[in-house]
Amino acid sequence: MKDNPTPGYAGRILRVDLSRGRIRKVSIEHSLLRRFIGGSGLAAKILFDETRPDTDPLSPENLLIFMTGPVTATNVPMSGRYQVVSKSPLTGIYGESDSGGSWGPELKKAGFDGVVISGRSAKPVYLWISDGIAELRDASHIWGLDTYETDRAVRDETDRYAVIACIGPAGEKLARIAGIINDGKHGRAAARCGLGAVMGSKLLKAIAVRGTGGIEVADPDGLQESIRKIAPSIIEKAKRLHDYGTSGGMTSIEAIGDLPIKNWLLGSWREGAERLSGQEMARTILSGRYYCRGCIVGCGREVSFEDERYGRVEGAGPEYETLAMIGANCLIDDLKAVAKANELCNRYGLDTISTGAVIAFAMEAYEHGLISREETGGIKLVWGDPNAMLSMIDKIGRRESKLGWILGEGVMRAAEKIGGISAEFAIHVKGLELPAHDPRAYYSQGVSYATSNRGACHLQSLSHIFERGVTLPDLGFPEIQERHSTYRKGELVAKAQNLMCMFDSLKVCKFILFGGVKPSTLVEWLNMVTGWNMTLGEFMQAGERIFNLKRLYNIREGISRKDDTLPPRILTHKRGSGGSADALPPLGELLSQYYSYRGWNEFGVPSREKVTELRLEEEARFLYK
Amino acid sequence: MKDNPTPGYAGRILRVDLSRGRIRKVSIEHSLLRRFIGGSGLAAKILFDETRPDTDPLSPENLLIFMTGPVTATNVPMSGRYQVVSKSPLTGIYGESDSGGSWGPELKKAGFDGVVISGRSAKPVYLWISDGIAELRDASHIWGLDTYETDRAVRDETDRYAVIACIGPAGEKLARIAGIINDGKHGRAAARCGLGAVMGSKLLKAIAVRGTGGIEVADPDGLQESIRKIAPSIIEKAKRLHDYGTSGGMTSIEAIGDLPIKNWLLGSWREGAERLSGQEMARTILSGRYYCRGCIVGCGREVSFEDERYGRVEGAGPEYETLAMIGANCLIDDLKAVAKANELCNRYGLDTISTGAVIAFAMEAYEHGLISREETGGIKLVWGDPNAMLSMIDKIGRRESKLGWILGEGVMRAAEKIGGISAEFAIHVKGLELPAHDPRAYYSQGVSYATSNRGACHLQSLSHIFERGVTLPDLGFPEIQERHSTYRKGELVAKAQNLMCMFDSLKVCKFILFGGVKPSTLVEWLNMVTGWNMTLGEFMQAGERIFNLKRLYNIREGISRKDDTLPPRILTHKRGSGGSADALPPLGELLSQYYSYRGWNEFGVPSREKVTELRLEEEARFLYK
Repeated sequence: MKDNPTPGYAGRILRVDLSRGRIRKVSIEHSLLRRFIGGSGLAAKILFDETRPDTDPLSPENLLIFMTGPVTATNVPMSGRYQVVSKSPLTGIYGESDSGGSWGPELKKAGFDGVVISGRSAKPVYLWISDGIAELRDASHIWGLDTYETDRAVRDETDRYAVIACIGPAGEKLARIAGIINDGKHGRAAARCGLGAVMGSKLLKAIAVRGTGGIEVADPDGLQESIRKIAPSIIEKAKRLHDYGTSGGMTSIEAIGDLPIKNWLLGSWREGAERLSGQEMARTILSGRYYCRGCIVGCGREVSFEDERYGRVEGAGPEYETLAMIGANCLIDDLKAVAKANELCNRYGLDTISTGAVIAFAMEAYEHGLISREETGGIKLVWGDPNAMLSMIDKIGRRESKLGWILGEGVMRAAEKIGGISAEFAIHVKGLELPAHDPRAYYSQGVSYATSNRGACHLQSLSHIFERGVTLPDLGFPEIQERHSTYRKGELVAKAQNLMCMFDSLKVCKFILFGGVKPSTLVEWLNMVTGWNMTLGEFMQAGERIFNLKRLYNIREGISRKDDTLPPRILTHKRGSGGSADALPPLGELLSQYYSYRGWNEFGVPSREKVTELRLEEEARFLYK
Repeated sequence: MKDNPTPGYAGRILRVDLSRGRIRKVSIEHSLLRRFIGGSGLAAKILFDETRPDTDPLSPENLLIFMTGPVTATNVPMSGRYQVVSKSPLTGIYGESDSGGSWGPELKKAGFDGVVISGRSAKPVYLWISDGIAELRDASHIWGLDTYETDRAVRDETDRYAVIACIGPAGEKLARIAGIINDGKHGRAAARCGLGAVMGSKLLKAIAVRGTGGIEVADPDGLQESIRKIAPSIIEKAKRLHDYGTSGGMTSIEAIGDLPIKNWLLGSWREGAERLSGQEMARTILSGRYYCRGCIVGCGREVSFEDERYGRVEGAGPEYETLAMIGANCLIDDLKAVAKANELCNRYGLDTISTGAVIAFAMEAYEHGLISREETGGIKLVWGDPNAMLSMIDKIGRRESKLGWILGEGVMRAAEKIGGISAEFAIHVKGLELPAHDPRAYYSQGVSYATSNRGACHLQSLSHIFERGVTLPDLGFPEIQERHSTYRKGELVAKAQNLMCMFDSLKVCKFILFGGVKPSTLVEWLNMVTGWNMTLGEFMQAGERIFNLKRLYNIREGISRKDDTLPPRILTHKRGSGGSADALPPLGELLSQYYSYRGWNEFGVPSREKVTELRLEEEARFLYK
């Protein structure tokens, strides 16, 4: 047995204790890498071990973990992403988010697989990592800058080729819907779960990385050959993503009844969807396409325009989720306004999904007289008004006025503060606002949102693509699944979640599935990089282990079946028109299948047998006390 | 127009202010009687007008309303019931309960349609009402007596023919699952919603009534003739109820998968059900059958036995609900033990449904180590142990020990106190423990439990009988409905709830439906009694008005769609065997139909059109502030 049984993957972690200003390099033991892989899985294990139910997410005791995966920065296509993991201040449970761009690969090339931040700095600092060396630097002079400004300022002080992940004013001021932005005006975001607020609570403004090292790969030739063969077909199959970005499907998403409209109340909005589509963007404000490091698709949008109402907008363009949540869900069909909103959210460091959700929430509250015009500072917060929307983003981003503060807490807390009937239209699961796919359109996303470990999330299963255009023959689903059926949906979602745990641990962009890459190919690549000899079965079991570890984390926090649900509007209110007019997800049946397939007991807790099977006995010990 | 437009129904109410020791007689105006009928409807209107969202159910500001209906004490068969209405200390929302026996008719013959209690006495008192005269008497010497003892003591002091409604030690000590018991050892109970605790909070031990007056009826000959024709067929059709009581259907209820077993976890328990059946009772401990005043069926059980473990038991025997909740739901198949438990609950003044539920809850908590043997006082609180169950009833009834106190608060609060996973098996809706019919067996009861104004309740719609053996041709349901289907279930439940509001307002025993009596016959009888000329349409609309009034009460307390749900166990856990092995109520679809049929909006609030249609504009005004 060799000294390093994983030639292509060392598990080198930088541990930064901000309270003591101490930086250490540690190595993760090989057995842990095999059990939890890297990225999301490895970070979840560290979070599980080092935080507790009484850990306040915004306290020094919380960890903020940045993690790449074994394939990051290799030639594996679309491996430019990194994961951020922490206890979420938005949901109070396991939180994670990921982002593309070049930050992750840059960190890897600087010699680290991840960075684990603990404690709280006495004053604002940033972390500067350059080819194996790390130091904390004063950030007092950049505290208060927006993320685009921060990116430039930190690169000016460090290295013009450094890549910066940072927070804006929203994260500094602990808005629970604040995210972390990297790659400056390219606007890549680890946005969900309020992890920007965790970074703000630690007074950590930014992490700048510069890496010029090589990446060791166990079988470079084999990997190169495999990729060479498949890359053209990925490019071909994902062509619409390249041409029109994530919003290239906007009009068909509207037609199928999947687009949230007017805070999830309405069924169709065809003309609005056309105005917000990727095709419309390509015809008007698009200035370029953005590729994350190692990407061969290029779904990112770059926009550039000058508008008398919105001024000059230049840089990252809005994704589908942003167009849907800030646009359609607020009945706003002005593409330029949403592009402006996108830039504002990036600069403030706000999650565009949660921001769109909370503005739609506020518009509904305003309509019902629960928010007064006095409280909005004179703004008529009416459906479809771009200026009202943009003003609210300013208020939320700066945490200005009582209302701006409240909305920055996310819809769950905003509803608690505003009271009255507002809990009825605070559309979230476990505190995380629903993203822009509707469980009434795809039943699998019903059970997925209800059980996702970070709260309502489409990406933690991406299961709706298996009800639309993508098959999973490797995993027993050689055909597209019927979206308005319960048939095998528990199994589908559980397997999809396990698979996504692997995507998030490797880390590979999930959109590679649109390029026709199958799970077995991922296993091949992982083995070629690491020198491991995993089977598809072991690979999927690792995903299952990671998913169950996160569930165990949440169970320790008090989560059980009672929390695995959907907002009443999604469960009981029909869209009324469009492609999902009469559908409501039969959640009880879906969950029953799901728990059964997962081997979870009557409380939604992994059974003893399942725990043993997944070798999680140590982690599950708290269950049997 | 005559002075009294309702010859057979005067609307005379006794108002008793316990704080001031003041008693007044008031008359309800005729228009209010036409809008809200009497019983539950009229009491709901008084409660709506005189309590507020900030009214603490156990404060002097709460009202405790005893109400009969227009047909009470007339020749209308099975009209011996009365309603108790109050803000519930168990649920914090609209609360009501009803009881048979002879108390209601006796009150009516004493010259009153109802008694409205307000305030709080400085010392224990009882109210003595005798033929138009009412007085408060000291009850210090009987405070602490059980209900059977209280019955005897108060009759000794007043009139041996007086009828007593009273509380036992549980109500005195404010157990939130305490009820009100009348007719002494005949053990008739207005048990649900913790109204015994409201009575206890007012230091009102009992209300004794004696009435010898006649009852005026508008068309006595017509009424007599109508009843003469139908009575034999009622008796014939309801013969099983007479022969074997409410538990005559125990084994078929078990077979169909409707019986709660082991805190709603299991699917079948055939031998246990046989041992608890009405047939077994008739073969063993049955000593007689009990008829409420005016009843021609006699479903009440009287039992008598001497047992070395349980001593002498004599008086009211257990109903189906008691046998199911204290027996099957705790896996106890010892009929005598349940009969003993029934007597204990009656004596302490406890709701047998909630008591059975909270003991099953405690057994499950004990199994999972959330209640220790130290906390039980050494009792092994294991499934199926009659002695453990009986000991717990003593502890709850006397509120002895911390555990006894906690369980007397009901399962919702007990789960909050005990914590951990226990919320998963606190089986309630809006704080009211589920009665012994399973929404997994009858989908209609799913939507019924979720929307019943007092929390989980089968009687507020009785809808499952329309999925079993009873039709409603008058109301558009000429055939038995398929129980595991969603077809027209929203409409069925809404209509059934409206109808039950009328049963509870008239007041007529709902079991008359088993005797084949149709709603149109009730309308006929109501008109003959009152001299009104209601159509079936008006009659059903009055029921709808009353149901919506209670909903408005609850909306004012903060209830909306988010609260209209079922416990996760009922929604997601399959029974696994028996007649409902694989069924789960598709609640979202059921509720969607229901809200739509009811004309309730996206929040579960009656629309403005519905409010106008039902002439509830004044009551609904708070919605539009």
